[in-house]
Amino acid sequence: MTPGLMQQTPLLITQIMQFAARAHGARPIVSRLIDEPLWRYDYAGLASRSAQIAKALIGLGVQAGDRVTTLAWNTHRHLELFYGVPGLGAVLHTANPRLFDEQIIYTIEHAQSVVLFFDSNFADLVARIAPQLTTVKTFIQMSDEARHQPGAVNALCYETLLAAENQTMTWPSFDENAGAFLCYTSGTTGDPKGVLYSHRAVVLHAMAAGLASAFGFTAFDVVMPCSSLYHATAWGLPFVAPICGSKLVLPGDRMDGDNLHDLIEGEGVTFTGGVPTIWTNYLAWLDRTGKTPASLKRVVIGGSAVPLAMAQRFHEAYGVEVLQIWGMTETCPLGVVATPTPALAEMGDEAMRQAIWTRQGRLQFGIELKIVTEDGQEAPMDGETSGALMVRGPWTLQRYFRQEADITDPEGWFDTGDIATLDAYGFMRITDRKKDVIKSGGEWISSIDLENVAVACPGVKVAAVIGVPHPKWEERPLLIVETHEGESVTKDQMIAFLTDRVVKWWLPDDVLFAPVPLTATGKIDKKTLRLTWSGHLSA
Amino acid sequence: MTPGLMQQTPLLITQIMQFAARAHGARPIVSRLIDEPLWRYDYAGLASRSAQIAKALIGLGVQAGDRVTTLAWNTHRHLELFYGVPGLGAVLHTANPRLFDEQIIYTIEHAQSVVLFFDSNFADLVARIAPQLTTVKTFIQMSDEARHQPGAVNALCYETLLAAENQTMTWPSFDENAGAFLCYTSGTTGDPKGVLYSHRAVVLHAMAAGLASAFGFTAFDVVMPCSSLYHATAWGLPFVAPICGSKLVLPGDRMDGDNLHDLIEGEGVTFTGGVPTIWTNYLAWLDRTGKTPASLKRVVIGGSAVPLAMAQRFHEAYGVEVLQIWGMTETCPLGVVATPTPALAEMGDEAMRQAIWTRQGRLQFGIELKIVTEDGQEAPMDGETSGALMVRGPWTLQRYFRQEADITDPEGWFDTGDIATLDAYGFMRITDRKKDVIKSGGEWISSIDLENVAVACPGVKVAAVIGVPHPKWEERPLLIVETHEGESVTKDQMIAFLTDRVVKWWLPDDVLFAPVPLTATGKIDKKTLRLTWSGHLSA
Repeated sequence: MTPGLMQQTPLLITQIMQFAARAHGARPIVSRLIDEPLWRYDYAGLASRSAQIAKALIGLGVQAGDRVTTLAWNTHRHLELFYGVPGLGAVLHTANPRLFDEQIIYTIEHAQSVVLFFDSNFADLVARIAPQLTTVKTFIQMSDEARHQPGAVNALCYETLLAAENQTMTWPSFDENAGAFLCYTSGTTGDPKGVLYSHRAVVLHAMAAGLASAFGFTAFDVVMPCSSLYHATAWGLPFVAPICGSKLVLPGDRMDGDNLHDLIEGEGVTFTGGVPTIWTNYLAWLDRTGKTPASLKRVVIGGSAVPLAMAQRFHEAYGVEVLQIWGMTETCPLGVVATPTPALAEMGDEAMRQAIWTRQGRLQFGIELKIVTEDGQEAPMDGETSGALMVRGPWTLQRYFRQEADITDPEGWFDTGDIATLDAYGFMRITDRKKDVIKSGGEWISSIDLENVAVACPGVKVAAVIGVPHPKWEERPLLIVETHEGESVTKDQMIAFLTDRVVKWWLPDDVLFAPVPLTATGKIDKKTLRLTWSGHLSA
Repeated sequence: MTPGLMQQTPLLITQIMQFAARAHGARPIVSRLIDEPLWRYDYAGLASRSAQIAKALIGLGVQAGDRVTTLAWNTHRHLELFYGVPGLGAVLHTANPRLFDEQIIYTIEHAQSVVLFFDSNFADLVARIAPQLTTVKTFIQMSDEARHQPGAVNALCYETLLAAENQTMTWPSFDENAGAFLCYTSGTTGDPKGVLYSHRAVVLHAMAAGLASAFGFTAFDVVMPCSSLYHATAWGLPFVAPICGSKLVLPGDRMDGDNLHDLIEGEGVTFTGGVPTIWTNYLAWLDRTGKTPASLKRVVIGGSAVPLAMAQRFHEAYGVEVLQIWGMTETCPLGVVATPTPALAEMGDEAMRQAIWTRQGRLQFGIELKIVTEDGQEAPMDGETSGALMVRGPWTLQRYFRQEADITDPEGWFDTGDIATLDAYGFMRITDRKKDVIKSGGEWISSIDLENVAVACPGVKVAAVIGVPHPKWEERPLLIVETHEGESVTKDQMIAFLTDRVVKWWLPDDVLFAPVPLTATGKIDKKTLRLTWSGHLSA
């Protein structure tokens, strides 16, 4: 090799904040808070306050490599920690407050965190779990002084700490492969597993997410992340927006229609995104109130498959484009985004939208995808052959935190646990989770495909399909339906609806009407459903 | 530090080609050739043929680290070498055919190239310089078999070599800091200096250039690079377009109005760019023919300051937005691009355009800029304080090829040799080259500002201002004017025009009417002008 002779500047998260402060320091950041008035500042303010909180952490003895945990919502203070903590060379563990207490304790203990930041409405949770946290030395409540309550954990006050420091900071430079964020998977099987994002992974991921194939923000966009900052860094939006010069709107913990619409209208939000549940509620709210999200151009939906009816409603009633997305904690999280291409456009607008709404998204530069069939061969890109979805690239996990072995195969591929197809247009479609696919008489039935059809039936709010043991066919599908409030659907109606739309041997053996439990990340909790209903067809 | 646990996949140029072939393999590439019909294929074809030519090079004994030179235009074969050569771990030296013979020989000898590829219309040049090339073992003519002529250098034929190889290639993986491209500065003072781009620099540069703050291509764009592929990789467009899924149109060596318009109209070009001369000619051609570039949305102009009249004409007559750009061989080359921001938009459309047309561009993520005044202090971002423009970042030069010392200061900054200002909007404006600034009585006069005013005078085609020694004031400005064909301007008219527009002490001491010489990269050749006219005011 002849070595190149360009500067070997490491890719560090602080560069994003410093760039934003210098290139568009006056671009606003708006944040809802817990029991405090709406907060409003800008990227220059973010840089100043991140420096202050970082200095406060140094004063508290936090060192490079230490882990710092947050139990926090989508607020500007959480954003400051997104920059201030990794900026020091420390690691930010964004704990998921929707997990069970014992799981939250497990992740903080596993992370060996020395500081725990928490939003005011987590004070009770923190008081409850504190006795079992053996490594946390300092608790910090994320509130202003007026609302500060030290409580049983003798918490310090965020704003008091911050006010004691000046706003200039010489951020250290270090290896771009240093850990920056520690995100735990929701752990539907076994203990949660830690994914330790490096600075390099976060910066490359944010640059790729800024391209038009993914989010493609311009300086005129107003971006409101409604996926949680604690959940895989909210798709990296806290990094993509400042790179692109977009205004950032943080909705706190309030994802109800009133609050969302107030921000969308008041701040001119052009782009938002989150799990389907939020948008089901928001669309219902819009229906009820007759209001219109005038500034809104795009809603990106991930976490679960997008109900077709939701995408249609956004488009037809409000001119809002819905883009699906697929990713996971292990991929930082961006894998694919369903954005238009000329090849799809040639099919006509209507067909293109159908294609985009029914596929998770297309191949993105920087993350390789392939499908491997049961015989270990790579599947053709035919849109039909399904198999294990494998991913590889600089923002894909190599090894879980504090584990001894890599999670990748010898060629570096990570098995996502999803079953998917890839088509000739470069679009990927998830057909199932590996553990959710229903094996009926040696053939596979996609639980997701069945759910997508069932949820389109009038009156149905959530449809869940699980495979349950069957004496003859090994497994058969069982459909659990939660209806919209005040509406009812019968089993016969449901089966009739499905009969017109799926092949006969896919029809569920039974339909049950019950509330559908969700996981801490808003997905259908199939583990619980299986525990409850596994004997239903064999009894 | 706690090391991150993400995959450490190196950033390599082959990933761009492999991504394009897989994600949008059928997206077209169209190429003009030298005396051959228009060539048309796609990204899948590019991947196949790059593999073939790489295999042919292996067969010829080319090894990782070797240098391979091209003397070639903007064609698909040159593009194939852009991927095939660095893909092997070898370095592609894109020689500048517009240099003098002795400079071309110097660069090839300095690069110690083992193979020289050349387009058919460089056969005479190659025959002329070949006797002085001591390291080149193999000459390859970039033509089909029918047009192949071995000549005195006994050249091999590109298509014959390629046809002998199959299309599958397992591209090697290696350190992302390995050298990929060797580009020489045009060397207005001293010998040309080599800038050795690493794979990492090229890939990061391309990702950043794909963001909306820079080129912001979508999959629907049709991109035609009219800056030369041999000149700092044509702003990285051969990498940005495939990352973004854009169609690529390569104009060969034909930048005349007929040929450009034929491609713009025939291929639906939405984005093009190059030095101002090309667009002066194209606008004149449009005037003459009454035709309209209907598909064209944006023209990015760099290499020299954009004449305001050109930007206005494109916008007002054809609805085409003109964006300035600034960069240099040492920055891969993208430094800044003048793209709109909300802060500018608030001033109104007209004022925003004026701002964009009179500034080189705004700060981009990944490349830091600062202005240092003569006293060594960083200048405020006030749009007025000018000083030395310093740059830093992962696609900025650390050291010239085969030199012993770094070119950066202890904090990693590279002094660009330009004099510039930065304003509160994050926009940079070049006021002069350090060596072109006119020092008159202890004050600075910007030669570029004077030229920009002078070129707006009716009848003026090119205006060049140089400082020439003056017995009293140290230096005084001299204006050299080349008029449009068939038009004439007098000295009195010129001075009268300037009097209304610049301060009195900036007025040139004399105005001369003569053809203005250009350098090999299309810039005003001030070195030659100074040699010719240095005695004009002191004699």
